[in-house]
Amino acid sequence: MTGTAPAPFTADVHRARMTRAAGTAAEAGLAGLLVAPGPDLVWLTGYAPPAETERLTLLVLAPGRDPVLVVPALEAPDAARAAGADALTLRDWTDGTDPYAITAELLDPRGTYGVSDNTWALHLLALQKALPDLSCVALTEALPMLRAVKDPAEVELLAAAAAAADAAFEEIRTMRFSGRREREVGADLAELLRRFGHSRVDFTIVGSGPNGANPHHETGDRVIEPGDMVVLDFGGLKDGYGSDTTRTVHVGEPTEEERRVHDVVRAAQQAGCEAVRPGAACQDVDRAARAVIIEAGYGEYFIHRTGHGIGVTTHEPPYMIEGEEQPLVPGMCFSVEPGIYLPGRFGVRIEDIVTVTEDGGRRLNDTTRDMVLVD
Amino acid sequence: MTGTAPAPFTADVHRARMTRAAGTAAEAGLAGLLVAPGPDLVWLTGYAPPAETERLTLLVLAPGRDPVLVVPALEAPDAARAAGADALTLRDWTDGTDPYAITAELLDPRGTYGVSDNTWALHLLALQKALPDLSCVALTEALPMLRAVKDPAEVELLAAAAAAADAAFEEIRTMRFSGRREREVGADLAELLRRFGHSRVDFTIVGSGPNGANPHHETGDRVIEPGDMVVLDFGGLKDGYGSDTTRTVHVGEPTEEERRVHDVVRAAQQAGCEAVRPGAACQDVDRAARAVIIEAGYGEYFIHRTGHGIGVTTHEPPYMIEGEEQPLVPGMCFSVEPGIYLPGRFGVRIEDIVTVTEDGGRRLNDTTRDMVLVD
Repeated sequence: MTGTAPAPFTADVHRARMTRAAGTAAEAGLAGLLVAPGPDLVWLTGYAPPAETERLTLLVLAPGRDPVLVVPALEAPDAARAAGADALTLRDWTDGTDPYAITAELLDPRGTYGVSDNTWALHLLALQKALPDLSCVALTEALPMLRAVKDPAEVELLAAAAAAADAAFEEIRTMRFSGRREREVGADLAELLRRFGHSRVDFTIVGSGPNGANPHHETGDRVIEPGDMVVLDFGGLKDGYGSDTTRTVHVGEPTEEERRVHDVVRAAQQAGCEAVRPGAACQDVDRAARAVIIEAGYGEYFIHRTGHGIGVTTHEPPYMIEGEEQPLVPGMCFSVEPGIYLPGRFGVRIEDIVTVTEDGGRRLNDTTRDMVLVD
Repeated sequence: MTGTAPAPFTADVHRARMTRAAGTAAEAGLAGLLVAPGPDLVWLTGYAPPAETERLTLLVLAPGRDPVLVVPALEAPDAARAAGADALTLRDWTDGTDPYAITAELLDPRGTYGVSDNTWALHLLALQKALPDLSCVALTEALPMLRAVKDPAEVELLAAAAAAADAAFEEIRTMRFSGRREREVGADLAELLRRFGHSRVDFTIVGSGPNGANPHHETGDRVIEPGDMVVLDFGGLKDGYGSDTTRTVHVGEPTEEERRVHDVVRAAQQAGCEAVRPGAACQDVDRAARAVIIEAGYGEYFIHRTGHGIGVTTHEPPYMIEGEEQPLVPGMCFSVEPGIYLPGRFGVRIEDIVTVTEDGGRRLNDTTRDMVLVD
């Protein structure tokens, strides 16, 4: 997604990222990378056009060549102000000329290019038509770990986003839940995220009672009642970097079973976090969390992966999922968020953002993982 | 873009749209349409997932077959609540299974499909890999006019969005401009659009003084001064349908030249609107507006097309541009927005949304096109 100002890195940082990306592409046997507006472009160049449109904007990266940004003439002045602009050559085009022909001249017509995942089909199909022997692969498939290892400045931006999300939770837990609709609580959460510095709110999931048993339930018109378990999963971007936090609260005193399920999820989340260390595989984090839930007899009710990377987006590689053997590397940042979902009844999920350190993992979130009782 | 609730049409309306789309596709020689989350999916099905992600959601439309929505299992409950859900078969898939294999089974492996413009390259490339003999063309290229002709209910939703934008302008013109930063005025405009019913603000361009001479300037830190011309171009979605309006105001008394340039643009915009009638070509609208500006000696300073369609997005076909011979049809809705941009000095643009009627064109915006003087 575009339109959100990235963190203000220097042109040198962007130049280094582009050089590294081109080098990594070459190692993977690619002729280069083609990057449309979106998180990859923001990370590489600092440029986020105000909207993705039918007009082609495309970064062409190739090893040993200067990066070129093909950009509509109308938007060239904005692109020229991007943080990484000094490391780019702008190739602008005006309405009525063919931007695909212009791009084609920059490419090896028989080369294989990594194409940013969210590049529009409109643009990809036009390039494939202009260069019928071009081969393309999805960037995330070719170079899944391109943005996965964060530098210290990025980790601190993620920590600041997590701290803002924590501040939002500390406020929301003091507010009234009972008798209000999920979407009212969701609107409060969104406002709190903005108040604590988020420029964009991506989601404020409020899943009360049976709605909490649908992990992707957003917020609805259901009125929260005494006795409800309520899953709160919220995040967005602050200074260009993401937050994503889940806490499950309870309206009034929980039942024995509710407390037990919450305890299991808390223990699973703890086990997942403790499995984080350099050299462990991504799937080891999933396995550690899942083992606790299976052991407690709730295995069939944990119906999603344990976590996902976070950076200039709120969902990106690496994924903590069975089958992902990618080793963890210091600087990787991702969620650890096991859950138990009892259909038609309630759900519990607990989520922190964790970064891999030299000797283990460091949680970037810091609010209690005990069950918080709300009014 | 997704995440914005569409207008509440009935399942029958959505069924009719899907049947018509499949029929139009067949007439164009296509085996069907593949539609990812975004404006086409909203228009066809009423379904807008909360976010576009790496998980495949794809509508498969083929003539004579029931529409199938491939959807992640986690999101299936939300899809099942979409306005058009009763006209859809949901084919859900869980993490760990291959959604492209599932989709491939629904397709003619040697067929040619129209693919929605904003479908992610990630998904298109995976489908192309699963079915190497598949041919794909961009939906807008194959069926550019699919959503171009609005039914009366859609025109009234666009009229309501335009009226809300007009209400925002009537408020902003009474507020102080001088001494405030462009982004403060832009924030006020965004708040006004929301107050008058917009669920999403796509842009609030405030181009003061020399910034007005860059048609795609957004808003910046420039402090607006007495004597500035200020271009205000703002829009978004209200009840799922778009607004897009431009008025150019002046802080205090304008100079002779400023008044002359504004008069030329106003006359050009009038001429463009008067060229709207069934059977005229899109390019005729552009030519009519442009002729006035060329005649006045400012031709080289009108550096963009005259207009674009509007509907469930704020920019879509048809385009009012030289070379577009598409005839106008009653129900089409688009902007008429000529401008003059004097580099380093100032710009003027005037924009209304116009719909084609049986006997001409009807402006959906209604605020004065005279130069408004502000404080």
